Amino acid sequence: MTKRKGRQTLLLPSRPAVQGYAAVAGKKEGEGPLKERFDYIGEDSYFGEKSWEKAESHMLRQCFQLACDKAKLPPSALDYVLAGDLLNQCVSSAFAMRDSAVPYLGLYSACSTMAEGLSLAALLVDGDFADQACAITGSHFCTAERQYRFPLEYGGQRTPSSQWTVTGAGAVILGRRGSVHITHVTHGKIIDAGIKDPNSMGSAMAPAAFDTLRAHFRDTGRGPEDYDAIFTGDLGALGHDILAALFHADGIELGPRYMDCGVLIYDLVTQDVNAGGSGCGCSASVLGGHILKGLEDGVWRRVLFAATGALMSPTSSQQGESIPGICHALVLEREE
Amino acid sequence: MTKRKGRQTLLLPSRPAVQGYAAVAGKKEGEGPLKERFDYIGEDSYFGEKSWEKAESHMLRQCFQLACDKAKLPPSALDYVLAGDLLNQCVSSAFAMRDSAVPYLGLYSACSTMAEGLSLAALLVDGDFADQACAITGSHFCTAERQYRFPLEYGGQRTPSSQWTVTGAGAVILGRRGSVHITHVTHGKIIDAGIKDPNSMGSAMAPAAFDTLRAHFRDTGRGPEDYDAIFTGDLGALGHDILAALFHADGIELGPRYMDCGVLIYDLVTQDVNAGGSGCGCSASVLGGHILKGLEDGVWRRVLFAATGALMSPTSSQQGESIPGICHALVLEREE
Repeated sequence: MTKRKGRQTLLLPSRPAVQGYAAVAGKKEGEGPLKERFDYIGEDSYFGEKSWEKAESHMLRQCFQLACDKAKLPPSALDYVLAGDLLNQCVSSAFAMRDSAVPYLGLYSACSTMAEGLSLAALLVDGDFADQACAITGSHFCTAERQYRFPLEYGGQRTPSSQWTVTGAGAVILGRRGSVHITHVTHGKIIDAGIKDPNSMGSAMAPAAFDTLRAHFRDTGRGPEDYDAIFTGDLGALGHDILAALFHADGIELGPRYMDCGVLIYDLVTQDVNAGGSGCGCSASVLGGHILKGLEDGVWRRVLFAATGALMSPTSSQQGESIPGICHALVLEREE
Repeated sequence: MTKRKGRQTLLLPSRPAVQGYAAVAGKKEGEGPLKERFDYIGEDSYFGEKSWEKAESHMLRQCFQLACDKAKLPPSALDYVLAGDLLNQCVSSAFAMRDSAVPYLGLYSACSTMAEGLSLAALLVDGDFADQACAITGSHFCTAERQYRFPLEYGGQRTPSSQWTVTGAGAVILGRRGSVHITHVTHGKIIDAGIKDPNSMGSAMAPAAFDTLRAHFRDTGRGPEDYDAIFTGDLGALGHDILAALFHADGIELGPRYMDCGVLIYDLVTQDVNAGGSGCGCSASVLGGHILKGLEDGVWRRVLFAATGALMSPTSSQQGESIPGICHALVLEREE
């Protein structure tokens, strides 16, 4: 095969291009360091809907529409939408897209969904299966909190290693024309390091990020220095440092070019989010609001985007299972 | 684009081939009309594990191993595994595959997961992104019942339109060598006909099957008569008749070549399953146990496989939402 480099990496000869993108954020995220980077910031947690689940769907629908508008494409010009979220049975995505009339591919990759969806969209375009495809995902603090943890009204203490689910969404439309291209994809294996504490997701997911990024470097012959910036999805402050330490032990310094979306999206000192942001919406809104803008504006020329996910459920944790992690990575490159 | 025919259908020039397949079934399914067609039948609902969720994972792992063995491939020869299930956060797939060391793409398409996974695996092979890829999914009556409906101990009455979640799994490995090929894929849009009764999934999903199959016939210029057999995934007896009636009103007779996996897998008279089988494992185990054997044995030469899914959750139904349906279809053809 000509497109495969090594065990896990694909080189995309046609270099699918970003035709449009958008990010929608919640109120808290709209008060954070990236507040100028989002296309829309919600005024409250309901987005005009009657339940938080419907609000999450509303936010995704709005983000999809914004991305279509910015790409100057009607939804009918899309050959695919690839979507997923954290809610049981991924209902916020399905309900967001049910009136779109676009062929729909549902994904579940926890908080790494944007990297899975965007990489598959790139393969659909590169393989000549689609002219345009949209990847979209998001999350909502209130729906995640009551589904994974406690009723919001309970107001329990949060451990320092815990993370705050981002209320936000991101959408990216790929096609053949644009100044930012996807050149490589590295799909990850499931890595289970035996961590069992659902309040320490960063430590559960960092080994998966390490495995995928190491595979990417091995397969491409590149190192961190070949990238202007490397972003993981939602390892948070703790997972960020674990990943840097794992590479350090391997003789590789990620250095200041390495950032985590969950650290960037909040002010960790003043916003009371403990170790930082998490959720599908974390890497999705930072990609659709911050990273792609930075590429277009010339802040970076070549970026490695590696979203991370924890493939557990409350039931699996209650049954004593550890937390398997996954990480999918892709390279975004601006034309010279 | 050369591979696209019409709005929703892809023609795969390289005709990815089935290299191996397997089906595992539960005790009840192993007492049904297809009992001779499964590779393994569980003795009880636990498959040697301590919880039903772990049993579901065990069944998937076993099915994956059987498919690898039958394809004479070690898991390390696979470039991808595409998997999903009905459990919250798709944990049975993730835990089944966590030690496989194969790059993992998680899917959520409810009971249509086998068609989504197999079609994407076909695109990965056709697009030169993979030499071999495995699609796998399954479901378990006991995990689905307690997650979606009531504790098993409750023993509630079941309405006549309800379906019985299949305990079973199916896995298919695609590559470049084999006698059965995937020639076309038609990916579906989400179709919401406004049905709100979660005990009548067949009526909620039949309009999606109608939409996708109609798109397939429109895009390819083919009709039902071009297929030796047409299988929907889990419409059950009620949904089967609704789909036939929808086509009849459109001037098209599906006739006896049209069958539903949920009707085939049980004896609807004696096995007390009301309208028939459902769940990811329904179409997956019938494909991996019955349809692919029939193609290899010459019973059929060209088959249209159209798995159906209901993209709802207990929460969406409790919040008054209707049930969006989806259907993905693909053509399986034996070499002359």
